[in-house]
Amino acid sequence: MSRIAALLETLAPIGRNEQGGYDRLAWTDADAAMRAWFLAEATDLGLETEVDRNGNLWAHWRLRPGAGLIVGSHLDSVPNGGPLDGPLGIASAFAAIRSLQEAGASPGSTVSVVAFVDEEGGRFGLACLGSRLLTGAVDPERARALVDRDGVRLDDAMRAAGLDPDALGPEPERVRGSYLELHVEQGHLPVDGSGAAGLAAAGAPLGVLTGIWPHGRWRIDLPGQANHAGTTPMADRDDPVVRAAAVVLAAREAALAEDALATVGRIDVEPGAVNAIAGRASLWLDVRGPDEARIRRVVDAVAAVAGVAPTEESWTGETAFAAEDARPLPAVIRELTGADAPTLPSGAGHDAGVLRAAGASVAMLAVRNPSGISHAPGESAELPDIELGVAALALVMQRVSAYSVQA
Amino acid sequence: MSRIAALLETLAPIGRNEQGGYDRLAWTDADAAMRAWFLAEATDLGLETEVDRNGNLWAHWRLRPGAGLIVGSHLDSVPNGGPLDGPLGIASAFAAIRSLQEAGASPGSTVSVVAFVDEEGGRFGLACLGSRLLTGAVDPERARALVDRDGVRLDDAMRAAGLDPDALGPEPERVRGSYLELHVEQGHLPVDGSGAAGLAAAGAPLGVLTGIWPHGRWRIDLPGQANHAGTTPMADRDDPVVRAAAVVLAAREAALAEDALATVGRIDVEPGAVNAIAGRASLWLDVRGPDEARIRRVVDAVAAVAGVAPTEESWTGETAFAAEDARPLPAVIRELTGADAPTLPSGAGHDAGVLRAAGASVAMLAVRNPSGISHAPGESAELPDIELGVAALALVMQRVSAYSVQA
Repeated sequence: MSRIAALLETLAPIGRNEQGGYDRLAWTDADAAMRAWFLAEATDLGLETEVDRNGNLWAHWRLRPGAGLIVGSHLDSVPNGGPLDGPLGIASAFAAIRSLQEAGASPGSTVSVVAFVDEEGGRFGLACLGSRLLTGAVDPERARALVDRDGVRLDDAMRAAGLDPDALGPEPERVRGSYLELHVEQGHLPVDGSGAAGLAAAGAPLGVLTGIWPHGRWRIDLPGQANHAGTTPMADRDDPVVRAAAVVLAAREAALAEDALATVGRIDVEPGAVNAIAGRASLWLDVRGPDEARIRRVVDAVAAVAGVAPTEESWTGETAFAAEDARPLPAVIRELTGADAPTLPSGAGHDAGVLRAAGASVAMLAVRNPSGISHAPGESAELPDIELGVAALALVMQRVSAYSVQA
Repeated sequence: MSRIAALLETLAPIGRNEQGGYDRLAWTDADAAMRAWFLAEATDLGLETEVDRNGNLWAHWRLRPGAGLIVGSHLDSVPNGGPLDGPLGIASAFAAIRSLQEAGASPGSTVSVVAFVDEEGGRFGLACLGSRLLTGAVDPERARALVDRDGVRLDDAMRAAGLDPDALGPEPERVRGSYLELHVEQGHLPVDGSGAAGLAAAGAPLGVLTGIWPHGRWRIDLPGQANHAGTTPMADRDDPVVRAAAVVLAAREAALAEDALATVGRIDVEPGAVNAIAGRASLWLDVRGPDEARIRRVVDAVAAVAGVAPTEESWTGETAFAAEDARPLPAVIRELTGADAPTLPSGAGHDAGVLRAAGASVAMLAVRNPSGISHAPGESAELPDIELGVAALALVMQRVSAYSVQA
């Protein structure tokens, strides 16, 4: 069994639920188990580990002065997520380091592995929290006051996990080096310069991500008149669930018209009784697309149907990665596959996007996902593709860090 | 202040929430406070109180052999319900007894007040639980195993409230007498033989209910493919929330076409993440109408849109009250208002319907509700109408029970 296969097998049971999906939300027991695995594996590799003030985990190989190469991703998942979104990048980095060590190689500058905390925002609602805190993109005071569905504050959750929430704050000097994130492909987005949707259609095991689509999230609170389900004539009703249904369909229509993506993944109905017309319905609208104008048009179309102004809960403009930051990824992929590396956008947000917005040098490598399914139990990649990803990471480490190979 | 006004004022703070609605679900602290009030007020009236094996509360005035008159309703509410649905019937019965006692009257046969437990089914999902257990319409074993949203079993909730769930079981001999329930009007349903919708439009403070519309509840589980909201093309999606939206709109269309009532008051979306296409959505469909055929056509139309067969969670056929059981209500109302008593159906289920289905003699008296709003904070009735309802109860008690008035 290859090293990466063994590492993924080790992680397979952690946070796995009865549906075969993964619940590894930030600061839960499953997250703690993932973090313990990170520290154990890093230590086994002889790396120097540390936890930064925001809870991000670091493992340094041959700490040296000057900017180095940082390879990373995250360990947390969305609720009932897949096995690879996040952990694949970390495990691949460790496997790449192991293969270089076994070949007797040693980096000329520091190679670090980082696991950013709470990338999904699946528990406290704010994605990329670890990298946002690190770069100063979110105020520590706001972060500490975030509350999960059960009313637990982030600072209390961190404290329960043995961290000190009072230490939260920016440490931008940590990402002066180049940041490289390997990630399982998500969806089948259009591959640049080809008619193919996704790496599978393009016949490519690996691809280079060119940036992250703009993305916003809106909350829509629909008022209504609660009433008895058995006694209120249909014509007299002011039913927020009916309005919510119209909003959901309008969002889909508008997204299709604009070649964008619109999703309602959460609806809260109050009071939620089976025999009462609801008094209020709230829904969350996630919209993404190739450019901001399309997204705004989708939201405007939805607002017209909703009859209320959506509340913008988050907005992230387009993040374009710089082609020069991806060096030497295309050459490495060509070397490994014998073909030019396809480039494609990401519809999902990533810590790489946050770091890039803060001025860091970032690149992302995508590993083919045959079904495109992500954030769900069906998320997968073939082992040979994953092993190719590990080989690519190892080659990049060698090229960027002026490795020496011991006799 | 009239006696009934004082009683309603006493109840006003119990279980009242910040929205001005009432949370008095079965076996909660608020329910316990309502039950304590019942026993205290009955004792103050010199009535003999008892709790039957199913937790229903009884207060007997002058226990005598033979069938008597039972006046009752319930004390629990739906989540965020109104102040009157249930408690108005109990408080009015106590106020009527008080007025008769003050006039020196004494019944020739037993007059009992009953508060049936858990009428709304707002916590454990099964309506009219107290009367169903009493009449043997539900198996005690099934009742004990009912589970609320937090996973609490009914038997544990009863035990925590000091009751013995092992004692649950039928006691049909308790309802050999005539049962009369005073209830706030719910909705504005068509008044028989007039074009009026509801008592307000008919210009009548009181009405006689002729029976309860047939009523069913269905659960519809919509499958889907969970996926990433930012990476899955609209055309590739299998989104159960979109299907749920179509079902909600189809239910409304079908109900309008059939002159029936259809309501979706609860939707559960899994996993309910703001940035993920859901993997499953479940919704509950409540359908009622003047006859079964219309209801079945509504459900069939919804099923065709849903693409799955709805699961029937409950079905109650039409319950017609016998006109002779309402004696002497029409005469009493004519005496009090100078006009013939309007008759109208009930779209809501009641313990009276359960008792009627078990062969008991039942009648229901409705008190005008200007807005028609029920099961919501806006539920109301004017005090003069309520006082007329109390007067009607007192007159019925006199007529039915061969009262003597002491000198």
